[in-house]
Amino acid sequence: MDATTRIEQALAAAIDTVAVPGCPPRLAEAVRHAVFPGGARVRPRLCLAVAAACGSRDYAAADAAGVAIELLHCASLVHDDLPCFDDSPLRRGVPSVHRAFGEPLAVLAGDALIILAFEHLARVLADSPERLAPLLLTISRSVGMPHGITAGQAWECEPQVTVEEYHRAKTGSLFTAATAAGALVAGADAEAWSVVGDKIGEAYQVADDLRDVAASAQEVGKPVGRDAVLNRPSAAGELGIDGAIARLRGLVTGAIDAIPACPGRDQFAEVLMAESRRIMPKDLAQRAA
Amino acid sequence: MDATTRIEQALAAAIDTVAVPGCPPRLAEAVRHAVFPGGARVRPRLCLAVAAACGSRDYAAADAAGVAIELLHCASLVHDDLPCFDDSPLRRGVPSVHRAFGEPLAVLAGDALIILAFEHLARVLADSPERLAPLLLTISRSVGMPHGITAGQAWECEPQVTVEEYHRAKTGSLFTAATAAGALVAGADAEAWSVVGDKIGEAYQVADDLRDVAASAQEVGKPVGRDAVLNRPSAAGELGIDGAIARLRGLVTGAIDAIPACPGRDQFAEVLMAESRRIMPKDLAQRAA
Repeated sequence: MDATTRIEQALAAAIDTVAVPGCPPRLAEAVRHAVFPGGARVRPRLCLAVAAACGSRDYAAADAAGVAIELLHCASLVHDDLPCFDDSPLRRGVPSVHRAFGEPLAVLAGDALIILAFEHLARVLADSPERLAPLLLTISRSVGMPHGITAGQAWECEPQVTVEEYHRAKTGSLFTAATAAGALVAGADAEAWSVVGDKIGEAYQVADDLRDVAASAQEVGKPVGRDAVLNRPSAAGELGIDGAIARLRGLVTGAIDAIPACPGRDQFAEVLMAESRRIMPKDLAQRAA
Repeated sequence: MDATTRIEQALAAAIDTVAVPGCPPRLAEAVRHAVFPGGARVRPRLCLAVAAACGSRDYAAADAAGVAIELLHCASLVHDDLPCFDDSPLRRGVPSVHRAFGEPLAVLAGDALIILAFEHLARVLADSPERLAPLLLTISRSVGMPHGITAGQAWECEPQVTVEEYHRAKTGSLFTAATAAGALVAGADAEAWSVVGDKIGEAYQVADDLRDVAASAQEVGKPVGRDAVLNRPSAAGELGIDGAIARLRGLVTGAIDAIPACPGRDQFAEVLMAESRRIMPKDLAQRAA
């Protein structure tokens, strides 16, 4: 089974355990709406790729870590889209959760997704408790205070913030958790793999900034140019388009150089190269070549 | 050290580990505002009392479970107070988090508190991992889908709901988790203790309903009569004041009868009796005698 199928099935199974008869039906619907159809699932794919590169065959543990990370990512999108933040009408080409279900259920669906992420991890890893605590700590730190995505979002409410600390917390932290968690599943060096995730996360952020200024609304499925409208720090704004493209390429090279010795090193490097081509905005692909 | 002091210190220590330099300062402030000064801390006190009644001397584990439960309770209050739910200007006699810090930070402070609850549990119990999974499952179920407080709050968004399932999920679930977690810390029968928590939770809910209709705004520190205004199910509304008082007394007696055999059974029963006197609205105390 390929990684994408594994992730979609594991996400559906995690939600099925709690969206059962007796659950408020609209909350269950809102939670499914927040998770399906998904985006590229880059964070759980990264987690699974690292676990595989390190030689792990414990697919259930890797899937559980990937699911927890993706559920937390989806939760952050639901809350980010709320009227008090971006007030985004669309997400992944369909109405955002608060537009489809109202603001109360959007707040609650985000909360329920955060809770489910940790509950699912505990349920799957109940029989190998020695791995539960480190995985849970790695993943919870990547979303909480002081440096996780909640903190990253909160920097938008502060009078002063640097582009690096904002992006590292808001976007990078969950990529770092994805590679570290993949390593923990395999019993490999989580700290060394964190460095790889850190660079990949920054590369995705730069690609996202580039898409935000360069791509058409249709291509990304959400309103574009919002970083500038909302006066948020952006790599493309700071470095210019050519500077941002150079930065993206440097980050991918840096991530590949940082891959620790492991059985699947070459294959993992190829995945990163393919992914870096995929995330480059199409209009800019020639400029980048 | 008495239970209240232990809980206040453990809550402060948990927040101190994440509200460190590098954390967005206003998010850290909003989180502290949501937790201090607290209410009566009834859920963590209940958790500690059960662990003690069962003879546990592992104070760190009991404190961690109590802290996780109280942080989740505080998170639910912050999100319940949001404009899209109760739009409550006050909480515990001071401005609600969104009134003091704005709506974005209130959403994020709630998220951060949920995450911290699980992170704190994992950090404290990292060295006794065999207890981490059951505690985490018990506590996460009490706040998530299908029957936890998030689901309870979501019933307000459904066209039909019964008063019992609404209150059991919205209020009762965290009391049930408090007694079950206290039992798990001590290695006692979590299921038997859940029954006690279930009845205590319902008793607090009935007392809250009674206060809502009977007490003055000053006494409870938040606007009263809101259940009726918001058309929410209420025991006092359904049973009348005298019926609700009789129900409350029956629940306390039932909780005491359900206490499993344990070293501190009599002392625990006394705690419940004292607590039942404390939560009865003052105006109604004579009527109840």
